[in-house]
Amino acid sequence: MNCSIISVGTELLIGQITNTNSVYLSQQLNEIGVSVLYHFTVGDNKNRLEEILEYAMKKSDLIITTGGLGPTQDDLTKETIAMAIGKSLVRHEPSYEKLCNIFKKLNRPMTENNIKQIYLPEDCFILENNCGTAPGFLIENNGKIIVSLPGPPREMSNMFQNHVKGYLQAKTSSVIYSKVLRIFGIGESELESVLIDLISEQNDPTLATYAKEGEVSLRITSKASSKQEASDKISPLIKEIDNRVGKYIYSYDNEELREAVARKLQEKGVAVSLAESCTGGMIASSLTEIPGISKCFDRCYVTYSNSSKMQDLGVQKDTLDKYGAVSEQTAREMVAGLKEKTKSDICIAVTGIAGPDGGSEDKPVGLVYIAMEYNNTVICNRHNIWGNRERVRNYSCLLVLNMIRNVMDNIVLTK
Amino acid sequence: MNCSIISVGTELLIGQITNTNSVYLSQQLNEIGVSVLYHFTVGDNKNRLEEILEYAMKKSDLIITTGGLGPTQDDLTKETIAMAIGKSLVRHEPSYEKLCNIFKKLNRPMTENNIKQIYLPEDCFILENNCGTAPGFLIENNGKIIVSLPGPPREMSNMFQNHVKGYLQAKTSSVIYSKVLRIFGIGESELESVLIDLISEQNDPTLATYAKEGEVSLRITSKASSKQEASDKISPLIKEIDNRVGKYIYSYDNEELREAVARKLQEKGVAVSLAESCTGGMIASSLTEIPGISKCFDRCYVTYSNSSKMQDLGVQKDTLDKYGAVSEQTAREMVAGLKEKTKSDICIAVTGIAGPDGGSEDKPVGLVYIAMEYNNTVICNRHNIWGNRERVRNYSCLLVLNMIRNVMDNIVLTK
Repeated sequence: MNCSIISVGTELLIGQITNTNSVYLSQQLNEIGVSVLYHFTVGDNKNRLEEILEYAMKKSDLIITTGGLGPTQDDLTKETIAMAIGKSLVRHEPSYEKLCNIFKKLNRPMTENNIKQIYLPEDCFILENNCGTAPGFLIENNGKIIVSLPGPPREMSNMFQNHVKGYLQAKTSSVIYSKVLRIFGIGESELESVLIDLISEQNDPTLATYAKEGEVSLRITSKASSKQEASDKISPLIKEIDNRVGKYIYSYDNEELREAVARKLQEKGVAVSLAESCTGGMIASSLTEIPGISKCFDRCYVTYSNSSKMQDLGVQKDTLDKYGAVSEQTAREMVAGLKEKTKSDICIAVTGIAGPDGGSEDKPVGLVYIAMEYNNTVICNRHNIWGNRERVRNYSCLLVLNMIRNVMDNIVLTK
Repeated sequence: MNCSIISVGTELLIGQITNTNSVYLSQQLNEIGVSVLYHFTVGDNKNRLEEILEYAMKKSDLIITTGGLGPTQDDLTKETIAMAIGKSLVRHEPSYEKLCNIFKKLNRPMTENNIKQIYLPEDCFILENNCGTAPGFLIENNGKIIVSLPGPPREMSNMFQNHVKGYLQAKTSSVIYSKVLRIFGIGESELESVLIDLISEQNDPTLATYAKEGEVSLRITSKASSKQEASDKISPLIKEIDNRVGKYIYSYDNEELREAVARKLQEKGVAVSLAESCTGGMIASSLTEIPGISKCFDRCYVTYSNSSKMQDLGVQKDTLDKYGAVSEQTAREMVAGLKEKTKSDICIAVTGIAGPDGGSEDKPVGLVYIAMEYNNTVICNRHNIWGNRERVRNYSCLLVLNMIRNVMDNIVLTK
């Protein structure tokens, strides 16, 4: 099966937003053995959209549109598709009820233009929207499948995962199966040089590295008639990679580092508390993205000011005066104060200079101290992180999560 | 003048990389008054590229391709364009010399396949590449302009800036100028219905709404002979919009809400502290993304557990037992404790149920209390936020930032 993706929205054509929907859908479709032949982007213009739709229908089996399903006048996708395939739009009562409920919950008036969203092409499958108001739809017509998804990325990806992926998968005879290993602590080029013979020899399975914000992903892909067959082809290669760089691999299932860490914490019932300065709550926010983490995560002190470091964590004024807020001494006192208050199994304190200001020759932007207390021992590491404010904060966050990961197997619970 | 952008490369169609070239070119072209009508992406496939080229030449005055100019076999753009317009490829000696020099400098052997890069369509303008080996080209043919740029973003953008932008600017007599207003607290559909007459009447300037994660953007665009003239045409419309929905507009310059809030805090020197439960540090993390915020942001208590709510903020055990952690009473005690400790000008406490678990009939997922103390008064709002964990957390964060924004004009500094 091959596919055209049509993104609808003038905001894309003026460069106001980046087309991440096409990236997401291309990845997802490739995974299930669908070849993507074209990406098209058109503005909120009926004639141009209609012509592109016709072109795409001539050239591909599957057409996926994103955008233009909303309540406003410039949302034209549904109307245009319906016209192109000779269907009329009919009112969908369950969607109407859902829409009313959403506005009731929001405690906002439902303006008249919202009604537009509940008119959908006759004979279509309606795709429920769990994150927004506009439903999508799927329709088979003259041997073609047309899928229409909303534009906001979260609504689009949820709808694709929940309603479309399985439907398409049932129609394709081969699968492209990938395993993504997630790696932290070794750079992309170094990783490649350790695995170069495996990368050069590749045919099926194939091996590709991909760097992202201080982490590296390693994608191993195989095409076969079943997931099991593809998985069997991949297994020996993963074993070999594991032999070479196993200690850097934190997930064999494309998990984010925070997910891998949260899973381990939850499995073992380990309690964690944090004290963050330069990261400003980012590590806490990252961990608390994970449902159910409240069983493990006690609290975090975002001690941005010196007075809060003293008041909440008992850092000595002398220490701050003599060594500064960004110092090993301060990091150690922060973690000691944190432990005393929380008694958590793992306590971590971070203090650093995120930039762009605040750096000096002695203490440049990117200098970060991380102190960790566990099993009655304290370790404190000094890092010089390269990059701008955003990167320093992100990378500090990864370093902390990775420290937690590394001690998880040896942790002795205090309670 | 209107334009089609054609991106060539299989890596785009499998979702390995994001198409940032189209975003960049769209922004640049809009700036100089060129309307972008289409983005096309095709793989390294001669037939499909040829057909898309034909389509684009039929539909637009200017066609810009990116990618497929390199030395390898799958680089086909030049050959395909030459064929489509009936030109042959000729060897370009200055490019050959430049290529030899590059390899000499790199101290690497120049493999045979590199020669391919110095063959270019007859009668074209050659566009020098300051950052890579493959030259680009520009050719006028049958009233159409075709520009072919390399794929790597840095090579592409340099070549466009140095050789193409000025050329095109000389051919267009107008600029397209946009203002983006950012809005919170009114939904997209409601906003449209308040502005419907302005949207319906539009011709120039045009008005478009765009929804994103609980926020709405409003883009006002005008085409004129100069930026000043376009700006003058836009001004009265902005004034009218301001009259109708001014209280919801938090930025007239496309800022994020956190940026607008941080700027106001910094301008007035207002001190802020936070106590976060369900948002888990997200609001603190969001504010501390902004450089220089340390002058205003004192601290945040991420009190995820009940014990931390009691220990750090003085919430009474009775209150938690009787009303629960997610209640107006708890939110009010959290903010009172926060104020006592920090004395910050604005203190805000958030407690809620982010889900997916933890909800009940009385207290469903999405129930969030936000208490704020300023000028010796406390207000506490109850919200029912609709959506999954991620949305509940994100939207809570926006609500808090918006509350800060709303009181900024009346704040009396305590220090």
